Amino acid sequence: MPRYKIIIEYNGYNYYGWQKQPGYQAVQGIMEQALYDFSQQKINVYGACRTDAGVHAKAQVAHFDLEKCYSDYTIFNALNFYLKQENISVVAIEKVAVDFHARFSAKKKTYIYKILNRRAPAAIEKYNVWHIPYHLDIEKIQEAANYLIGTNDLTSFRARGCQAASSIKTIEKITVKQRYNNVNITLTAKSFLYNQIRIIVGTLIDFGTGKLYHTEMQKIISAQNRIKAGVTAPAYGLCLEYIHYP
Amino acid sequence: MPRYKIIIEYNGYNYYGWQKQPGYQAVQGIMEQALYDFSQQKINVYGACRTDAGVHAKAQVAHFDLEKCYSDYTIFNALNFYLKQENISVVAIEKVAVDFHARFSAKKKTYIYKILNRRAPAAIEKYNVWHIPYHLDIEKIQEAANYLIGTNDLTSFRARGCQAASSIKTIEKITVKQRYNNVNITLTAKSFLYNQIRIIVGTLIDFGTGKLYHTEMQKIISAQNRIKAGVTAPAYGLCLEYIHYP
Repeated sequence: MPRYKIIIEYNGYNYYGWQKQPGYQAVQGIMEQALYDFSQQKINVYGACRTDAGVHAKAQVAHFDLEKCYSDYTIFNALNFYLKQENISVVAIEKVAVDFHARFSAKKKTYIYKILNRRAPAAIEKYNVWHIPYHLDIEKIQEAANYLIGTNDLTSFRARGCQAASSIKTIEKITVKQRYNNVNITLTAKSFLYNQIRIIVGTLIDFGTGKLYHTEMQKIISAQNRIKAGVTAPAYGLCLEYIHYP
Repeated sequence: MPRYKIIIEYNGYNYYGWQKQPGYQAVQGIMEQALYDFSQQKINVYGACRTDAGVHAKAQVAHFDLEKCYSDYTIFNALNFYLKQENISVVAIEKVAVDFHARFSAKKKTYIYKILNRRAPAAIEKYNVWHIPYHLDIEKIQEAANYLIGTNDLTSFRARGCQAASSIKTIEKITVKQRYNNVNITLTAKSFLYNQIRIIVGTLIDFGTGKLYHTEMQKIISAQNRIKAGVTAPAYGLCLEYIHYP
């Protein structure tokens, strides 16, 4: 049975996240339906990241096995045909070795959180950015973010309902960049806890507005208490940007 | 009666263009309703450009008169409050002289047409770009576009139903830029005919794909016949970017 790796782009706004759940429109379920429409087989699709409801992906990675062998081109066109009515698109496809696993073979993941920092609310990008109308000091956000780099117990940045065995996580990189009114926070790590990025971003904003001074970040981490961190930033500002494989 | 100039951003996808029409959700009508909600007066809002249904605006300009004098800040906040449920946002406001007219004072307008040039359909930006899956030669598009610069009879690029008195128009600039899979065509002119930009873009694509050779552009212009030009590019790829005032 040949195994295929696909890269999927989606606008998460109208979906209940990646993971299929009965009664909800989730990207995984829609992908499996498209594969069924194409092949008439029930096929499991395994994704690298379980993005939350509303979160976008520029490059989610998934794999699946087919009974028959098709050309990449045939599957690519067929899936995009059956996805036409959705805000989901297969961006690339390739045959891979059977030991490739979208989730377990992944080395690290990069997400970008997008903020629109101006007085006026977002209109064109209303469902792709978090609108913050107060002045943000980018350097102060970066300064606070630097405390999170490396290996830490991130219990403070973990949502209730997180099923991860350990709350100790290693964050490789957080960079904060501003271009006109747009502030992008890019995070790279092997893996993240449930809602971790959105809680980190919600907390970092408090440093950008001057509500907190950067040394407070160490205290928030050490507290190991969700209540010490900031709000959970809205899902629609977040985008799974890239998944790194060996 | 004080006169105000406002800059409005909107995602045109769900609107029937700028101009109010009975029974349709148009941006002008929604702005007038928001002003009514705020001031309890029936106020006419005059826009600089009558953008088509589906076309976006990063900086539409409009003016209106109020009976009472309010601070810019008050009107700005009130309008954005009443526009909360819409994909419309007031980006800036200022009091202007009573001889300012959003449309008649405008010197020129800049639009950007956005194309996603890759095999995979658009997902995140599905309603903000035109997806073209064939290879586009950007230099060939620019070469053909250059024939349109200057003053020409643009009957070939004018939709049926255009009410302009003259089809002779002066295009100041057309630039074609590529960044990864994104191709942006930027056009600047004093004014445009009905659907002119979308017909120009639809025609330019035929040069980019190699269907037409650049010298054909002169023939299309000279024909003064809509049928000689290409398709009308979809509205949702187009965005009113900037309106120039003295």
